[in-house]
Amino acid sequence: MSTSPVTLDDVRDAAAQIKGAAHHTPVLRSRTIDRMVGAEVFMKCENFQRVGAFKFRGAYNAISRLSPERLRRGVAAYSSGNHAQGVALAARELGSSAVIVMPEDTPQAKIDATAGYGAEIVTYDRFTGDRVAIGGKLAAERGLTLIPPYEHPHIIAGQGTAALELIEEVGPLDALLTPVGGGGLMAGCATAATALSPGIRMIGVEPEQGDDTKRSLEAGHRISIPVPRTIADGQAAEIPGELTFSINQRLLDGIVLVSDEEILAGMKLAFERLKIVTEPSGATPLAALLSGRLDPLPARIGLVISGGNIGLPRFTELMSVSG
Amino acid sequence: MSTSPVTLDDVRDAAAQIKGAAHHTPVLRSRTIDRMVGAEVFMKCENFQRVGAFKFRGAYNAISRLSPERLRRGVAAYSSGNHAQGVALAARELGSSAVIVMPEDTPQAKIDATAGYGAEIVTYDRFTGDRVAIGGKLAAERGLTLIPPYEHPHIIAGQGTAALELIEEVGPLDALLTPVGGGGLMAGCATAATALSPGIRMIGVEPEQGDDTKRSLEAGHRISIPVPRTIADGQAAEIPGELTFSINQRLLDGIVLVSDEEILAGMKLAFERLKIVTEPSGATPLAALLSGRLDPLPARIGLVISGGNIGLPRFTELMSVSG
Repeated sequence: MSTSPVTLDDVRDAAAQIKGAAHHTPVLRSRTIDRMVGAEVFMKCENFQRVGAFKFRGAYNAISRLSPERLRRGVAAYSSGNHAQGVALAARELGSSAVIVMPEDTPQAKIDATAGYGAEIVTYDRFTGDRVAIGGKLAAERGLTLIPPYEHPHIIAGQGTAALELIEEVGPLDALLTPVGGGGLMAGCATAATALSPGIRMIGVEPEQGDDTKRSLEAGHRISIPVPRTIADGQAAEIPGELTFSINQRLLDGIVLVSDEEILAGMKLAFERLKIVTEPSGATPLAALLSGRLDPLPARIGLVISGGNIGLPRFTELMSVSG
Repeated sequence: MSTSPVTLDDVRDAAAQIKGAAHHTPVLRSRTIDRMVGAEVFMKCENFQRVGAFKFRGAYNAISRLSPERLRRGVAAYSSGNHAQGVALAARELGSSAVIVMPEDTPQAKIDATAGYGAEIVTYDRFTGDRVAIGGKLAAERGLTLIPPYEHPHIIAGQGTAALELIEEVGPLDALLTPVGGGGLMAGCATAATALSPGIRMIGVEPEQGDDTKRSLEAGHRISIPVPRTIADGQAAEIPGELTFSINQRLLDGIVLVSDEEILAGMKLAFERLKIVTEPSGATPLAALLSGRLDPLPARIGLVISGGNIGLPRFTELMSVSG
């Protein structure tokens, strides 16, 4: 549709824009996993992306398109996760500066990582403060440009370059699985993949307790859920984005839900067989694939391993629980 | 020299031979590591190789060249580590069978992994038994072909394909660091790299307690040391191979030694920044690079991350010790 807010051309533009700044991440194969699943599996490893997650793609694409004046004034974002690091690093690389608004109980490692990319950190009380209001106020006072985590065509197009690279490298796929949080990664990847690989099934993966997109797709409109309790902190969205949902509603074929236990099994398999580190959200597509809930099973399946940001202490804690 | 037992042509032949069977492993980059080191670092990830280590390359190259009659009778190897798995899988893929001789105190996970590739496991008492005698007897009785871990031109040429792929992908390098145990990986890589990238410095990395190749190079002949106590179990060699040493003596520029503590720091950095799983031996080139002992510092440095076979329990145990 010509009225689509993001098109394959936008994703191609984003790819040109981030070239040289973002990593062209490798696609891993594993015959063990192929055999376990009974299909050919192509894993796009965004845990090897800069800042350790796909978020750098969208952040860099969005920030690099700001005017020199806006770049000079700086950007802002509210995020305790990978978006924070993506915005911080992209701003620094583009000669801008970033203010990141985070809950004050954010793990010190994440604060340090974001500050390490040169960002100023502003904290707030998660229970009494309103991050949107705080971010908005900051932006207004200092003239900063807010970089949203997913609700922007440049962010969505940037994230879509992961699928573009994957399909350009391995050819058409029968299905592509990506984690769904706010929906930006899925919206971008679905835009690219459905255009490049006609007939492809786009399967979103959500944690059982964070099934806002699944419920919303079933209802035909955006549904809000209580703050999800899940180890997949990158997917703890309460409601799909408006823009991302409009795209995903059109392009998604379905959502698979995975339990925390299945996610841990996916992380463990990734460690022991793939030799890669995945954060819980990054392992959800693998968990979905292993759950056997993909029916019928596609022959050639792409997975976006979306991130690998997990500290050793947290990782060992999670793995000891999983037994 | 035309009299060299292994040449670049042999490595190219090996590359053609293993094509489609072995993975063409990815080369990872990290700006964080480039910045920490002050050089461009290219990491050839053999932890993503089949069986989780470079050993599959040599094993497949060697076994695939056996006569149909020898393949029918089967192969044998003595190894408790990655060579065992490489031989087991290569034998299975080539329609042959493998008997692997292992100490009876080998961790069950390694026995299971090797048996999982279809090999028959024969155990012996590490303190009273002689694995060479046991392997030789088995081979004689059953007509098996012994596949040595490094002392064979086909093994060495196969391991060299890792360096061949690396340099073909990223261009000439100023230095290449590989772990040195028996010396097969280094001998093959040095053969390929010095031919493809004239002037390259070949730097071997050994654990402090397993410095048999360093001592041997200094002495000008093979020196035997007591069984090394090191976490780098893949490099616990007591003496360099005769064939591998003859090549390494000619092509190596030096050896860097790393402590167990430095190896753990390398594994930790690989986990947290590269998002990859390395076994202790696989992390020794990274540890050497971080030690600052490379003087003068080359501008473009290749590392062979040789393997990633470490179970989660052992990994978490090592990481908790390292603090």
